Amino acid sequence: MAPGQARANEQGGDIRERLASVRALTEALAAPLSDADATLQSMEDASPAKWHLAHTTWFWETFVLRQHAPGYRLFDARWPFLHNSYYEAEGARIARFARGLLSRPSLADVLAYRAYVTEAMMALAGDPALNGLIALGIAHEQQHQELLLTDIKHALWSNPLGPGMWELANQREEGPSPRADLGWHTFPGGMARIGHEGPGFAFDNEAPLHRVLLEPFALAKRLVTNGEWADFIAAGAYSEPQLWLSDGWSWVQREGVKAPLYWRGEEAFTHAGWQPRYADAPVTHISYYEAEAFAAWAGARLPSEYEWEAIAQGAHDASGGNQLDAAGPVLPRGGTALFGDCWQHTRSAYLPYPRFRPAAGAVGEYNGKFMSGQMVLRGASCATPRGSSRTSYRNFFYPHQRWQFAGLRLAKDL
Amino acid sequence: MAPGQARANEQGGDIRERLASVRALTEALAAPLSDADATLQSMEDASPAKWHLAHTTWFWETFVLRQHAPGYRLFDARWPFLHNSYYEAEGARIARFARGLLSRPSLADVLAYRAYVTEAMMALAGDPALNGLIALGIAHEQQHQELLLTDIKHALWSNPLGPGMWELANQREEGPSPRADLGWHTFPGGMARIGHEGPGFAFDNEAPLHRVLLEPFALAKRLVTNGEWADFIAAGAYSEPQLWLSDGWSWVQREGVKAPLYWRGEEAFTHAGWQPRYADAPVTHISYYEAEAFAAWAGARLPSEYEWEAIAQGAHDASGGNQLDAAGPVLPRGGTALFGDCWQHTRSAYLPYPRFRPAAGAVGEYNGKFMSGQMVLRGASCATPRGSSRTSYRNFFYPHQRWQFAGLRLAKDL
Amino acid sequence: MAPGQARANEQGGDIRERLASVRALTEALAAPLSDADATLQSMEDASPAKWHLAHTTWFWETFVLRQHAPGYRLFDARWPFLHNSYYEAEGARIARFARGLLSRPSLADVLAYRAYVTEAMMALAGDPALNGLIALGIAHEQQHQELLLTDIKHALWSNPLGPGMWELANQREEGPSPRADLGWHTFPGGMARIGHEGPGFAFDNEAPLHRVLLEPFALAKRLVTNGEWADFIAAGAYSEPQLWLSDGWSWVQREGVKAPLYWRGEEAFTHAGWQPRYADAPVTHISYYEAEAFAAWAGARLPSEYEWEAIAQGAHDASGGNQLDAAGPVLPRGGTALFGDCWQHTRSAYLPYPRFRPAAGAVGEYNGKFMSGQMVLRGASCATPRGSSRTSYRNFFYPHQRWQFAGLRLAKDL
Amino acid sequence: MAPGQARANEQGGDIRERLASVRALTEALAAPLSDADATLQSMEDASPAKWHLAHTTWFWETFVLRQHAPGYRLFDARWPFLHNSYYEAEGARIARFARGLLSRPSLADVLAYRAYVTEAMMALAGDPALNGLIALGIAHEQQHQELLLTDIKHALWSNPLGPGMWELANQREEGPSPRADLGWHTFPGGMARIGHEGPGFAFDNEAPLHRVLLEPFALAKRLVTNGEWADFIAAGAYSEPQLWLSDGWSWVQREGVKAPLYWRGEEAFTHAGWQPRYADAPVTHISYYEAEAFAAWAGARLPSEYEWEAIAQGAHDASGGNQLDAAGPVLPRGGTALFGDCWQHTRSAYLPYPRFRPAAGAVGEYNGKFMSGQMVLRGASCATPRGSSRTSYRNFFYPHQRWQFAGLRLAKDL
Repeated sequence: MAPGQARANEQGGDIRERLASVRALTEALAAPLSDADATLQSMEDASPAKWHLAHTTWFWETFVLRQHAPGYRLFDARWPFLHNSYYEAEGARIARFARGLLSRPSLADVLAYRAYVTEAMMALAGDPALNGLIALGIAHEQQHQELLLTDIKHALWSNPLGPGMWELANQREEGPSPRADLGWHTFPGGMARIGHEGPGFAFDNEAPLHRVLLEPFALAKRLVTNGEWADFIAAGAYSEPQLWLSDGWSWVQREGVKAPLYWRGEEAFTHAGWQPRYADAPVTHISYYEAEAFAAWAGARLPSEYEWEAIAQGAHDASGGNQLDAAGPVLPRGGTALFGDCWQHTRSAYLPYPRFRPAAGAVGEYNGKFMSGQMVLRGASCATPRGSSRTSYRNFFYPHQRWQFAGLRLAKDL
Repeated sequence: MAPGQARANEQGGDIRERLASVRALTEALAAPLSDADATLQSMEDASPAKWHLAHTTWFWETFVLRQHAPGYRLFDARWPFLHNSYYEAEGARIARFARGLLSRPSLADVLAYRAYVTEAMMALAGDPALNGLIALGIAHEQQHQELLLTDIKHALWSNPLGPGMWELANQREEGPSPRADLGWHTFPGGMARIGHEGPGFAFDNEAPLHRVLLEPFALAKRLVTNGEWADFIAAGAYSEPQLWLSDGWSWVQREGVKAPLYWRGEEAFTHAGWQPRYADAPVTHISYYEAEAFAAWAGARLPSEYEWEAIAQGAHDASGGNQLDAAGPVLPRGGTALFGDCWQHTRSAYLPYPRFRPAAGAVGEYNGKFMSGQMVLRGASCATPRGSSRTSYRNFFYPHQRWQFAGLRLAKDL
Repeated sequence: MAPGQARANEQGGDIRERLASVRALTEALAAPLSDADATLQSMEDASPAKWHLAHTTWFWETFVLRQHAPGYRLFDARWPFLHNSYYEAEGARIARFARGLLSRPSLADVLAYRAYVTEAMMALAGDPALNGLIALGIAHEQQHQELLLTDIKHALWSNPLGPGMWELANQREEGPSPRADLGWHTFPGGMARIGHEGPGFAFDNEAPLHRVLLEPFALAKRLVTNGEWADFIAAGAYSEPQLWLSDGWSWVQREGVKAPLYWRGEEAFTHAGWQPRYADAPVTHISYYEAEAFAAWAGARLPSEYEWEAIAQGAHDASGGNQLDAAGPVLPRGGTALFGDCWQHTRSAYLPYPRFRPAAGAVGEYNGKFMSGQMVLRGASCATPRGSSRTSYRNFFYPHQRWQFAGLRLAKDL
Repeated sequence: MAPGQARANEQGGDIRERLASVRALTEALAAPLSDADATLQSMEDASPAKWHLAHTTWFWETFVLRQHAPGYRLFDARWPFLHNSYYEAEGARIARFARGLLSRPSLADVLAYRAYVTEAMMALAGDPALNGLIALGIAHEQQHQELLLTDIKHALWSNPLGPGMWELANQREEGPSPRADLGWHTFPGGMARIGHEGPGFAFDNEAPLHRVLLEPFALAKRLVTNGEWADFIAAGAYSEPQLWLSDGWSWVQREGVKAPLYWRGEEAFTHAGWQPRYADAPVTHISYYEAEAFAAWAGARLPSEYEWEAIAQGAHDASGGNQLDAAGPVLPRGGTALFGDCWQHTRSAYLPYPRFRPAAGAVGEYNGKFMSGQMVLRGASCATPRGSSRTSYRNFFYPHQRWQFAGLRLAKDL
């Protein structure tokens, strides 16, 4: 996920509050972590929590303060090399797989860096000329909040002790969904307006607004559940090549995949360690390949991203459902809202919309450069900061990746 | 590339002639090869020429003779294991990378196999009930004719001696195109009808016919040339990350890519060995990543497969241009026809059309299973058997692959 | 295996006969092979038969003819690049793993090359000044005769059809050894004279002659058999880490090793295809790791190379036993001679003898450079040309390699 | 490196003091490290500092307390899985490359574990029946003290900031050696007594004492220096295949090696970060391949381990020279003592001595199992705890490994 371009003025009134709140939430998410926890990189796809804390800060320093704050001095001139993610225009950077070798700067050093930059940003924020850029920085930091959560989950799971970072207060607070018939949202076919236009913030890859012709289809009213996935396993699906895409079957065999990531017996790994798995909760941590095979097994298919968006434009609230409000354990709980719980695999490759133009300059260097080999996921997950999801939001991952809260919602032709 | 489903009756009158002619052309293409030449597998993507000769024969045996020829006896019961490509429903098969370890059966054995099966097929052909299936087999064998040519080209290139399999009679017979302004085919925007419907043969992945809404765009009247590619290299494009997709840039660095495949100094490798390279001939043997970077550098973009097809539905003859008529050296010569010379990269991922249904049974098991991770190419190349290309034909390869005759034709928004 | 230095004059009288005979035997060994058979390279460790035919010829051309035959013209100036094995001083060469990509030059071309060079050599041979060099070339070609046999065996085994290159006339001609008590050769301890000195030919790595102090030990009078190996397997040895060297256990797990190479059910692969396996025949095609684990399981150990040589200096005939006399299937048959049937693993790393000096010039560039990471095997195998083995001969391979006729003879302390 | 067997009673009088002192030194070495520093694993060969702290403690718990301390309760029953190194007889264990994924237990937890186990050990120590086992545990922990230092050095070097863990008080305190003629220790040839026998502690791989016949030779009186290595580089040695063993040349090319590990411009990395490199200090952090190539270039050779030991049996004090006395930066300083500064590569493969018997039980399961593929180094380094080195001590590493303080001392034939 990469930041794009702020497309319009945000209302200046509360941008300082939003900025302060976002900076504080990032720190709250990392608060249970020790220096060592925050240093771990358990695979190349993931980054250390400390890196997320620092990279989001580097982003403000590089794209706002360095250019717009007169007399601003870098916190440490050696650090941009460590905290640049992939911005070629911003110069050399540490290899991605080596982010986990950085015991220094320490967590305390990084928190001091955050305080220094937040203070400088608070002095700038409020200038209407910077609202677009600040809205972008906020969206960027919110993306990294979700990644911080999914990356540290993978790191803690990699430890045979299975440590948690939070305790579950009351997992059953919200009742799980009944394991009932799906129910379907339907669309009669015709023209849909897809993408973002207007005053609110969106990334460049959501634009421009354009029309797409859709055939009649239906989209399930709820997500596929753990219980349904257990049936899929029991039916031998992981041993049946005819259910799988060719690349997916190669992946299953090469990696010895037999179940979703984070499953073990009747348990699933969570930010609160190993916990019982509920049959009625949405299945998560599945790859595109798995989602596609399940849909084939179920006699259905995945929706396209256009279909998903067309349904979402109805009475569905992008700020609703089970999304992240505050630091604490995040769990898919089985709600039926279109947003929340988990990202939903689509059959759409991540490609540019017609007349797509990447934003100018380094800050907008990228979304476009990732438009190859990845698939689009739509919606929002229980780890998505509430307020950062949009009907037009396009998330994207490689088809084998599973460490995000990714599940599926079936579709069918009408 | 995988075979799909015959959608309609072919006219029975000449199907026996077509069958005989296709069988003969395959053998003519392999005629200059020694037993050892025909055994080589120079990379996992490629197959030995002998394997193509045998696999196309296995196809007739497995999907037609075994089921429709009463009393048919397999030529050798041990061979299906060797010559099945990827049909899971047809049982176990040799690992793809091990196809090059088969010095036995010999080329002579395989030619005897071909004669045996062709004779059995000629006895069956003419039964109208089999016309659809035979049309499919013909299309399948034609696909493998092109692969035989591109695979053996790679194998011969891998030999430091750079041997050719044919001589060039007169490379300049057709004059190269002038290096002139591009010229553009334009489309005013609106609804396009995409895909195949009707009585002729097509693969299942070309169906169903459906409507797609297109924005106004233009498609270049000619292909990008070797000379233009040399300018791209001279401009330092292979060292400039900002021109590349992220995956493409990783590929360039990992593989040390500096030019199209088969370039060496001022020469290019051909079926007639190393030959001078003509500036005005179309550039070929480039990956999707390279095509995409070139388009970015040129201030243009790649067309979508829908855009390409919408233009092709005009006065463009899918049987025209520089395509394969007979055994002999195949060379892009710089014509301006929409079909021929080289396949053309599009920005479209290879995905199912709306309401796509894979054909039933093993024979139609696949096109669908390859719908992940690959990109669509359109048109036809100088190695495509004339008559096998169609306006709706969808070729597909992974974005790093280069051993096909693949080039590009620029597009732009209007 | 690499050639070294001829240490003394050979008797000039029959060197022309020996040369002619060796050249003819190499060709006889390849006579059953088709052009395609002779082109196969089934793994990086192995080379195509055609390559052995050509490389041994290149050796004569490079180290004898080019320097000593006035006016000699290279057969083809492009071929040294293809047929140099690893002589850095002789310039660039094709990558080892790419030897299997050479369908050209053809087998017929290579045989013509052989005839051309043999003729030139026959004109030179007889000059006493060249006897040492010619003896080296003969020894070199004999080494490659054995490699040709073991490499083509691997290639044919890699074909699921399991083709043979010869028929077994009468496998039982020599009766297998009784499965009896081992019996032991003993050595009372004391000084042994190790290595080569004197007028006969030897490689540089066999020199200089030196003394080694040995403790009292015993060496088994026969080789370990297939039947004993089956007991080792039945005892669960391939699942018992405590029997294995650490590197060996990693190898067993990584490669999934469960039996010697070329075993399948009750059969073993031979140059005559799959054949029944005899319990009393010596086990072969085992790695050093396996030999070491078997010895540990059997409560014995492997001999050192010095121990082996000390025993061999008794009444053991290096030209005796089951060695290669003529083209035809080679099979370990269970004799009890110290030489023949199979090479015998020792616990000695392949390292220089005290005061070892590599031979001067490119021809003697190497034996020394391989003195790292490999283990010494002693004796001779059923594929070793009779007359090329010596009491002081040191064969060497990496501890995981199995494609040679390598077995074991137990030792113990006294 | 693996522990072996205590061969004799240690004097009971001060074993409690030695135990306490060793436990304290381990902790002092780790004292400058943060929790995050102590968690880093920068390559598979290395382990986190925290793991060394815990593994040495597990060793006492597993091999002494669990068996000899009545009523002893494991500190945490889940931890043996984490802290077993390679003892198959002690059950399953975490994969070696995953040791760096353990942010928990924390450094504080591990220090509490150490205190708990040290206290239990102090209660046991003094019982003469346990003296042998305790001597073994002390030797084991001393080995890990050196590894802790070399592993954390690699981890800190992997950080682009190049942090140090200590400051250099006065690097020049001891003057560097003059860059003078080598001078030679000589040995006239004859029988040498090699290995350990007698009352003191030694590992099982140092036994039994046995005789080896040596040719006359000389061993340099000082180590090869950084300045001499710079000359080797300047002479183009890293580009000259003829100087290298075949495996070594492959390694140089594959890894792009151009200098010793930890060299950068005129600096070298130390536990005090990047520091100027002194020409007269011994070169360290070189592989066996590099040592071998240097010796070839210098017209000398490496000594065998027997030669080294024969010289060391003279008036050379195994407790002398530049070895580790207390926590603080360790640096090769250029002394000429036979022990200290750096381990010295030998040309001897790490193999069993005649009549070698591995110690019984899990504790002595191993030294023997590593006797394959590794080379012996002799002496001691600046990171070797003084008192743990012996004339008969055999250190061993793979020929490509460089992260130890390994250098070379030339030898030559007389």
